[in-house]
Amino acid sequence: MISEKMKAMVANSSAIRAMFEEGNRLAQIYGKEQVYDFSLGNPNVPAPESVKQAIYELLDSTNSIELHGYTTSNAGYLDVRQAVADFLNAQFQTEFTEKNITMTVGAAGGLNVILKALLNPADEVIVFAPYFGEYRSYVSNYDGVLVEVSPNTGDFQPNFEEFEKKITEKTKAVIVNTPNNPTGVVYSENTIKKLASILEKKQEQFGTEIYLISDEPYRDLVYDGVEVPYLTKYYANTVVVYSYSKSLSLPGERIGYLVIPDEVSDSEMLIAAANVATRILGFVNAPTLQQKVVKACLNEKADVSYYNRNRELLYEGLRRLGFECIKPEGAFYLFVKSPIEDEIQFCEDAKKCHILMVPGTSFACPGYVRLAYCVSYETIERSLPEFAKLAAKYK
Amino acid sequence: MISEKMKAMVANSSAIRAMFEEGNRLAQIYGKEQVYDFSLGNPNVPAPESVKQAIYELLDSTNSIELHGYTTSNAGYLDVRQAVADFLNAQFQTEFTEKNITMTVGAAGGLNVILKALLNPADEVIVFAPYFGEYRSYVSNYDGVLVEVSPNTGDFQPNFEEFEKKITEKTKAVIVNTPNNPTGVVYSENTIKKLASILEKKQEQFGTEIYLISDEPYRDLVYDGVEVPYLTKYYANTVVVYSYSKSLSLPGERIGYLVIPDEVSDSEMLIAAANVATRILGFVNAPTLQQKVVKACLNEKADVSYYNRNRELLYEGLRRLGFECIKPEGAFYLFVKSPIEDEIQFCEDAKKCHILMVPGTSFACPGYVRLAYCVSYETIERSLPEFAKLAAKYK
Repeated sequence: MISEKMKAMVANSSAIRAMFEEGNRLAQIYGKEQVYDFSLGNPNVPAPESVKQAIYELLDSTNSIELHGYTTSNAGYLDVRQAVADFLNAQFQTEFTEKNITMTVGAAGGLNVILKALLNPADEVIVFAPYFGEYRSYVSNYDGVLVEVSPNTGDFQPNFEEFEKKITEKTKAVIVNTPNNPTGVVYSENTIKKLASILEKKQEQFGTEIYLISDEPYRDLVYDGVEVPYLTKYYANTVVVYSYSKSLSLPGERIGYLVIPDEVSDSEMLIAAANVATRILGFVNAPTLQQKVVKACLNEKADVSYYNRNRELLYEGLRRLGFECIKPEGAFYLFVKSPIEDEIQFCEDAKKCHILMVPGTSFACPGYVRLAYCVSYETIERSLPEFAKLAAKYK
Repeated sequence: MISEKMKAMVANSSAIRAMFEEGNRLAQIYGKEQVYDFSLGNPNVPAPESVKQAIYELLDSTNSIELHGYTTSNAGYLDVRQAVADFLNAQFQTEFTEKNITMTVGAAGGLNVILKALLNPADEVIVFAPYFGEYRSYVSNYDGVLVEVSPNTGDFQPNFEEFEKKITEKTKAVIVNTPNNPTGVVYSENTIKKLASILEKKQEQFGTEIYLISDEPYRDLVYDGVEVPYLTKYYANTVVVYSYSKSLSLPGERIGYLVIPDEVSDSEMLIAAANVATRILGFVNAPTLQQKVVKACLNEKADVSYYNRNRELLYEGLRRLGFECIKPEGAFYLFVKSPIEDEIQFCEDAKKCHILMVPGTSFACPGYVRLAYCVSYETIERSLPEFAKLAAKYK
């Protein structure tokens, strides 16, 4: 009796659940320490201590109705939005004001809001494989059509030739995700410039507006001092989707924001539409206490060195065993080439060594697997001998 | 460049915004004390002190990853869901377990989740006028068709004759809201029994399942000891949508839950679909800290006597001036008959006395106006002489 659209999604969701339950089953039989679950992107670094302090101070200093009430605008508290704008301006030499910022229920909420605001049925949204599988659902929620650009497995920068061919007059948006889930790749400034010039050319050719949606939950999780270009500076029709889930380790609290710059085409209308979408999709406003918390913690960050240690250990360990993968510059994922063509079989084989990974097929990139290294260092240490056994199998 | 569907919504939203700005404009000219804004349903009673205590204790006792991380299930923490189930079972002699509870981003989030889970395009959803205008958007989000039953202005219980005629084989759901926004009416047990028997008859006649969605954000705001029947006990295909926005005065925190009982047709499938809908609509999970807060405050309630005093003062005051309205048994709204046919003109006249109200047309019930009395007692006191001037106009 549930909707037809949901039936397939429930079936698919059961597959993910099955993997999760397999992890629990293995843990019960062999003990939790003997199971190496690299399947989940759930941060395991605690929130900075300043988050706790901020909550204490807010409870003491702010009256209940101000702290827990509806915000006057669905976009969120004015002072919080202004603080976010100021923070971005100082960091990226942009010129945002509070009106360019809409506080959201995480990045997933922000993506739904902006797609709701933009899409007519049958509008096309281009994504670059491998991509976060949820984009498929988000675009489908608003009857959009997801158009995939196939993976460039050389360096996982976009495949521009194919991209250019796939832009049509129905292309309403392009989603990029850098640092990338699942590859950990950061798009270089050259990539961004090339992307922008193709989009500008195509806008002119078709006389359309193509919105570039930059999904940036991993912006602040980067290594080796790599720079992540701020996309609004390269292409006018850019909307940024940010989340504090990873940068402040607050994924359960659902707090993030959208940036809709003045330079975006029909900016005022789009901002108003994002406001309405926030309301009618049932978010109403981003959780109020957490809005105030992130304002107080704009300069804080979860301990990225923790993920960096994990990255080094897992990357070096797997390379030594002969696995192929590029070294991620951001996020907390390794995207490893399957030693056999059928990566689903590879994942099955890995389970026998108590290693859980996600098949690349989930990211529209078969032949690869994703390992989330937001686990404990010790888990990685203990897993390496098991990876060695696994590697031996294919020698 | 925004979506066609959104254009009309943005225009409509500007009208609401215009009213809000009119309030600000009047306040700037005449002073805030001389403006009587009854237009907004934003609770003005603080959260119980126990909410603050609960947050302090959670910060001290729970590690950051548990407190702020993703929940294992998108439905929320297992212990929170079990506690909600236990609380309901003790209060209503039901037999829910954790699996029947899905924690949601308020009632607005819950309604979106259940409608996403249920509706195919062109499925019909019946509502009883006057009704909360947002239902129109929520149903439209999933391409459903909203079917209105016209108001029964005698006692604002449902118009059953018309209801029965409007149920078709395409009817997928019926939304009821008791205590009601905008009337404050509580549906009697007789009403619920009659509703259930009609739905059962129609299910049999058409061989369909019709889900009764009980939207209950005002369940705990009732006066004079009135009982609000628990609908799952009267009709098997009932889903309950609850919010702590009013009962704990936490509207900005976005925390509530869905109850999908085992007795509901395809219960397991519907629970799984609600789980998936929570994820793909971008909620992911209800804010985690607030999940734990409501668990700790299940037996707490905002001070309802505050609203009750307001109710008595405004109701008696308006009655004495000759205005017609029924005495609300719950929520914090008075639904007053306009002394002239065109209630929009009445609202305009009221503005000249610095009184802001919402026209009944917004609730599909022209000829009436809604006054939200979740304001200060003093605001009501000061407004009464202005209402007297307004009344004199129509004598």
